[in-house]
Amino acid sequence: MKTQYHISTQQPSGMPISKYRAFEDVNPVRLPDRTWPDQRITRAPRWLSTDLRDGNQALIEPMDAERKRRMFNLLVRMGYKEIEIGFPAASQWDFDFVRSLAEEGAVPEDVTVSALTQARPELIHRTIDSLVGMPRANVHLYNATAPVFRDIVFHNDREATRELAVAGTREVVAYAEKVLGADTVFGYQYSPEIFVDTELEYALEVCEAVMDVWQPEDGREIILNLPATVERATPNVYADQIEWMSRNLSRREHIAISLHPHNDRGTGVASAELGLMAGADRIEGCLFGQGERTGNVDLVTLGLNLFSQGIDPMIDFSDIDDVRRTAEACNRMDVHPRHPYGGDLVYTSFSGSHQDAIKKGFTDRDEKVAAAGGDDSAVVWNLPYLPIDPRDVGRTYEAVVRVNSQSGKGGVAYLLSSTRDLDLPRRLQIELSGIVQKHTDAYGGEIDAEKLWSIFADEYLPHTEAMGLEPWGRFDLEGTTLTTAGEGEDAVLTVTVIDNGERRVLAATGNGPIDAFVKALDEAGVGVDVLDYAEHALSTGGDATAASYVECEIGGQVLWGVGIDPSSMTASFKAIISAVNRAAR
Amino acid sequence: MKTQYHISTQQPSGMPISKYRAFEDVNPVRLPDRTWPDQRITRAPRWLSTDLRDGNQALIEPMDAERKRRMFNLLVRMGYKEIEIGFPAASQWDFDFVRSLAEEGAVPEDVTVSALTQARPELIHRTIDSLVGMPRANVHLYNATAPVFRDIVFHNDREATRELAVAGTREVVAYAEKVLGADTVFGYQYSPEIFVDTELEYALEVCEAVMDVWQPEDGREIILNLPATVERATPNVYADQIEWMSRNLSRREHIAISLHPHNDRGTGVASAELGLMAGADRIEGCLFGQGERTGNVDLVTLGLNLFSQGIDPMIDFSDIDDVRRTAEACNRMDVHPRHPYGGDLVYTSFSGSHQDAIKKGFTDRDEKVAAAGGDDSAVVWNLPYLPIDPRDVGRTYEAVVRVNSQSGKGGVAYLLSSTRDLDLPRRLQIELSGIVQKHTDAYGGEIDAEKLWSIFADEYLPHTEAMGLEPWGRFDLEGTTLTTAGEGEDAVLTVTVIDNGERRVLAATGNGPIDAFVKALDEAGVGVDVLDYAEHALSTGGDATAASYVECEIGGQVLWGVGIDPSSMTASFKAIISAVNRAAR
Repeated sequence: MKTQYHISTQQPSGMPISKYRAFEDVNPVRLPDRTWPDQRITRAPRWLSTDLRDGNQALIEPMDAERKRRMFNLLVRMGYKEIEIGFPAASQWDFDFVRSLAEEGAVPEDVTVSALTQARPELIHRTIDSLVGMPRANVHLYNATAPVFRDIVFHNDREATRELAVAGTREVVAYAEKVLGADTVFGYQYSPEIFVDTELEYALEVCEAVMDVWQPEDGREIILNLPATVERATPNVYADQIEWMSRNLSRREHIAISLHPHNDRGTGVASAELGLMAGADRIEGCLFGQGERTGNVDLVTLGLNLFSQGIDPMIDFSDIDDVRRTAEACNRMDVHPRHPYGGDLVYTSFSGSHQDAIKKGFTDRDEKVAAAGGDDSAVVWNLPYLPIDPRDVGRTYEAVVRVNSQSGKGGVAYLLSSTRDLDLPRRLQIELSGIVQKHTDAYGGEIDAEKLWSIFADEYLPHTEAMGLEPWGRFDLEGTTLTTAGEGEDAVLTVTVIDNGERRVLAATGNGPIDAFVKALDEAGVGVDVLDYAEHALSTGGDATAASYVECEIGGQVLWGVGIDPSSMTASFKAIISAVNRAAR
Repeated sequence: MKTQYHISTQQPSGMPISKYRAFEDVNPVRLPDRTWPDQRITRAPRWLSTDLRDGNQALIEPMDAERKRRMFNLLVRMGYKEIEIGFPAASQWDFDFVRSLAEEGAVPEDVTVSALTQARPELIHRTIDSLVGMPRANVHLYNATAPVFRDIVFHNDREATRELAVAGTREVVAYAEKVLGADTVFGYQYSPEIFVDTELEYALEVCEAVMDVWQPEDGREIILNLPATVERATPNVYADQIEWMSRNLSRREHIAISLHPHNDRGTGVASAELGLMAGADRIEGCLFGQGERTGNVDLVTLGLNLFSQGIDPMIDFSDIDDVRRTAEACNRMDVHPRHPYGGDLVYTSFSGSHQDAIKKGFTDRDEKVAAAGGDDSAVVWNLPYLPIDPRDVGRTYEAVVRVNSQSGKGGVAYLLSSTRDLDLPRRLQIELSGIVQKHTDAYGGEIDAEKLWSIFADEYLPHTEAMGLEPWGRFDLEGTTLTTAGEGEDAVLTVTVIDNGERRVLAATGNGPIDAFVKALDEAGVGVDVLDYAEHALSTGGDATAASYVECEIGGQVLWGVGIDPSSMTASFKAIISAVNRAAR
């Protein structure tokens, strides 16, 4: 045997890497004394949903008025208080939708709507016109500050670019003063676009110039939104950029620093979280990460990440499936099965060891909750493989357990327990899991609760009429009479069995019914040793049915039998017959 | 107008937050002198694909032998040199698959396969038995070290848990010595499970005890895999944990520290990247983030994130659609349209301003590439909204431009340019974008290239027979005769037009054909002022067709006409007629 390691055999890919530059070489950020890695998030940021703007503009089929209203109502119901409702100067549909909200009084008093605009005066006017009558309204003005836009797209230098932002801000102030009545609480948001690609000093310069116009002060905040419109670097770099801005901006106490991450590198959520640690106050995103290309940062994941740490997201996710259904209907785009917190498969475990651990975790938790007088919220959540309790978002672990050829005993046992109330002894679980695995190895695919039950019943309960199974096996039980004379006396048992189609009456005595039954079988030529035995009621109440599990050694084989009957004694006899029949199968 | 801001109106959600604890309070990590935030990733880590193990075990329909082989071949083709091929002791299917690879010599000499096992001797034996005949093989042993497992699932104390890892490692060493021949380069990987939930000091203690058995040294590395099997905290915390381990492990130079992040908090990619910065050498994941619940970390995103920074991923992603198709076929699970780098929509832009910027970016780039003698790789990629060149992964930007009611002129112009070779003048782009927007506002949905062309042709080219359109408008052009007598002389034009169904012959002279044509129209009672004019060939070569664009003022309206004809003169006449007809529409 040779060991020869630590030498990577990986080869160059041949891809054209010389075409690309590291972000840190293009737009360096120097912040060696950063403090954000020592911070913790301790409360929810202010959230802005841009589902109706950035999300909507990226849809293959943008929402019609009805779907927009449905999305708006969902966002309000969940608790979002800042909602970007469109780009009214860019689309008649958006304009009409904003007007419909205003004219129908659809916006609650504590909800601030915002509308995006470019810096051109006619667009600013149309934007503000659309907002007349809103209880609380924000104008969100952006212009392109990054070098690629200044140099290639707009051919504006730094000064012209800054002046565009300044002039736009002036126009917003002047026109809003003129057009909006005293009934509208009015606010302003400015975004240097694309912030992450803009030289930090220059982004600061433009933001300061904009603030010189807006004049933030007590009761007159400014929202400075610092977008990662395209993700360019690892998320720590964005955090450094945010901390740098937060430290260097004047009038900091009157600024809401806002993050607007996208997900091009798959790190939108991390960028938002590290950005919060770096001092941001507010996050813009979309439900389930809708938005241009790879999407905006996902507000659902961000909110439930907080929840999982005991921090109130200030948003109600208690019916995640309702949120998902509505978002899917409005966006006409599905949420992926593996999407955090909301996907179909995220409270599912397939692996046997995971299932086993989760089952034990639930049992332990149930005991602790019972000890706490049934107060679920008094017991700290600590379940293997489940970062939150699926029930807290209206989901279940049970409903999504699936059993396939990779699963072990835990999943099988859990499914039978949750759907049939059967509490299988551990060694029976192992035996059954082998049977199920043979089945899945042979047929492939997933086994649902119904299929599992039919495999189980066919193996252990072939005489259960309700299953519609073909009965099989040498013995069936027909009737029993047990007489116990008195304390210390043996029990006298008479059983009628069908033995290969023929009725036979067997009789025996024993120190209890099982002992007697084993002896009766012995009389019929069947040697059985009972090794282990367990029984429980299947339901509570007067007509409780019993489930009996018996581990037997029969002709050198060790195997289990199961019996279910209203009589616990008959259930145990049936279990032994189940084992005897299986041994001969 | 009132401004009153910086006061969040957000309300408590009512969700049961008291049930949860912040990770940092449960398993504190103290590393104030961390160095990872100052690090940069400068080369690819070693990659391990666990598509055939962790990915496969989480599938609704686990792969059959054929799909497994197809996945294995894909991974080898892409350049993965470490591939976890199953959990052979847990599934007959996995065992058989591992054997089939070995017996058919399907594993290249430079590829290390690995197999997962728990620490029980019979499982270790079966695992190693499965690997006989492999050129390079790893046994990957794990046991549960986190408190939730020790306390609730296995009821093992710290010592028993450590001894399980030690005994398992001894068994691996002894049995591998016995069973594997000199032809197999053999290695060992140990995972304390779940690392992130394990007390750091204890994880270190177990890893050291395992190393005391394995005795890593030159040419005998050990892989210590530190899984975030369930994401518990922001990714910086994982980085702190990794840096702490990397600093405190003895024999560091003989250890490959390996990361195994999952994605429960949507930050798996960030955890892997920050973990690399913190000193890790190796990452385990799956293509497109397949795996239990929210999936394993996505190897595609990680690899192409490196690529976008000019770092060779050492994996070939040059045909991302092939990778995706194969992964989807093997996993029977789709990649989401917004999945970074591989999703259907990630090189699409819907917003007009994005499309416009991208178009200008491509034009600028094309010029620079031409100036570099056509060497694409010599020009640094710097395109707005496109973090990598889609062509580098076998995709196109062109193919996925879509035009909807939110799009502006950029997308429309780009589509006509890329599919029809039409280079519309800027003001014509604006005019057309209004027409398209009316269409999308009225009918909703997306407009593809074909639909856009039919809108364009119906508006500007209603007499183009090939389109099968209903011709409309007062005039059609039938024939022309232009005579130019000599230098300085006026041109004499005779045109035959169909005017409201009747053939008319018009004649005029002018200083050129357009001037003469305008005068001829004047004779027919139609006053046209030509304001702007542009023309270009639609193709190169002898039978080039010309496209002509004319901006006219007609009866107080300013509007464009378009003409296409093999004769550039006729094209310009058709363009004027197009404008005249449109003015009267």
